[in-house]
Amino acid sequence: MLTTQDKLLNAAFSLIQEEGFESITAAKITTQANLGYGTFYKYFKSTEDIFKEVFRQKLKAVSEKIYTMNQDEEDKIFGYLKGHALIFYYICEGKYTNWIMKRPNYFIEIISDAAREHATTDLREAMEINQLDQSSFLDLEEMFALDVWLIIGALDLIEKGFERDKVCRSLLRYVAPQGLPSSLTENLIDGILLTIEDDLPQLLH
Amino acid sequence: MLTTQDKLLNAAFSLIQEEGFESITAAKITTQANLGYGTFYKYFKSTEDIFKEVFRQKLKAVSEKIYTMNQDEEDKIFGYLKGHALIFYYICEGKYTNWIMKRPNYFIEIISDAAREHATTDLREAMEINQLDQSSFLDLEEMFALDVWLIIGALDLIEKGFERDKVCRSLLRYVAPQGLPSSLTENLIDGILLTIEDDLPQLLH
Repeated sequence: MLTTQDKLLNAAFSLIQEEGFESITAAKITTQANLGYGTFYKYFKSTEDIFKEVFRQKLKAVSEKIYTMNQDEEDKIFGYLKGHALIFYYICEGKYTNWIMKRPNYFIEIISDAAREHATTDLREAMEINQLDQSSFLDLEEMFALDVWLIIGALDLIEKGFERDKVCRSLLRYVAPQGLPSSLTENLIDGILLTIEDDLPQLLH
Repeated sequence: MLTTQDKLLNAAFSLIQEEGFESITAAKITTQANLGYGTFYKYFKSTEDIFKEVFRQKLKAVSEKIYTMNQDEEDKIFGYLKGHALIFYYICEGKYTNWIMKRPNYFIEIISDAAREHATTDLREAMEINQLDQSSFLDLEEMFALDVWLIIGALDLIEKGFERDKVCRSLLRYVAPQGLPSSLTENLIDGILLTIEDDLPQLLH
């Protein structure tokens, strides 16, 4: 049985998918959930409040799915880069871009909570099998934090009208470990972009 | 002769340097400027409004100074990276970090206006003298946009307590052209960090 809170969250999520964030009201959410209007404010302070919770839960679930997908991937750097590509496409496809770009600090907080542990585990394992050069490298937390800001940068480029696949390629060039030969990085990225089409639907549904 | 608007801007700037953004009011600014309280609202809608204008003017002036400093530098990549380092230290020293981190989109807009033309000129010249590999490269506007988001990422790390010189080094590793051998990048960065101490005071005064 769904709790009342879950019903509200599901209703909000459906509405976001249908019409985007801008025009959704508490009344629309309760109507969609077959609940009385007043119920909304027992669980959430505002539409902003419920949107944040929807986004937090979805991103957490998506991060888990990505981690499971990547677990059998022996090339940890490939997995790490692919995780960034998938999150980027997921946000674009899910119509979250504009909303997130107005709340970049919130996005950083949420994605750090949802994915930092998995992502830094990938990086640590890459170091252990010598895929990453330990000596010249950044603190892993610091590296992941900058990589997440690059996702925001990439979303900003989408808002400015740049083309999605091109932006994703640029994003991955930045996220790829420094010092890797360009040809190797390009091969990695080609491989990732080839698999994205197959994997993205699993995240969206 | 200073205009009334300039007097207000100068007073706001002095107060920011003295006490940071948080506690400044319109009354404090007009007192500092030896003007009547009501004068403030003839020129600015709010303290937020005047802060934005102070920051915009300062960043514009700093970008010009950096461009002049770098103009004789034959190594355009060195100049480009150093520009990022100087902006980063300028913001930290000028006590702007916390304020900017709450307004990242504003920062991106301002720095793009102030520095995009100079920065992309540096990159274009680097391409012409084959310092940058044209074939595998990003659109220059796109590259600069992501590099500016990395400055925000670096400031976020400062807010989270990471050490300034270490964060600057990480920032420059990301901003450095992909595909450059690690040892070359590290040499470039060492060179930049050595000159920062001499150049930063020129920007601050």
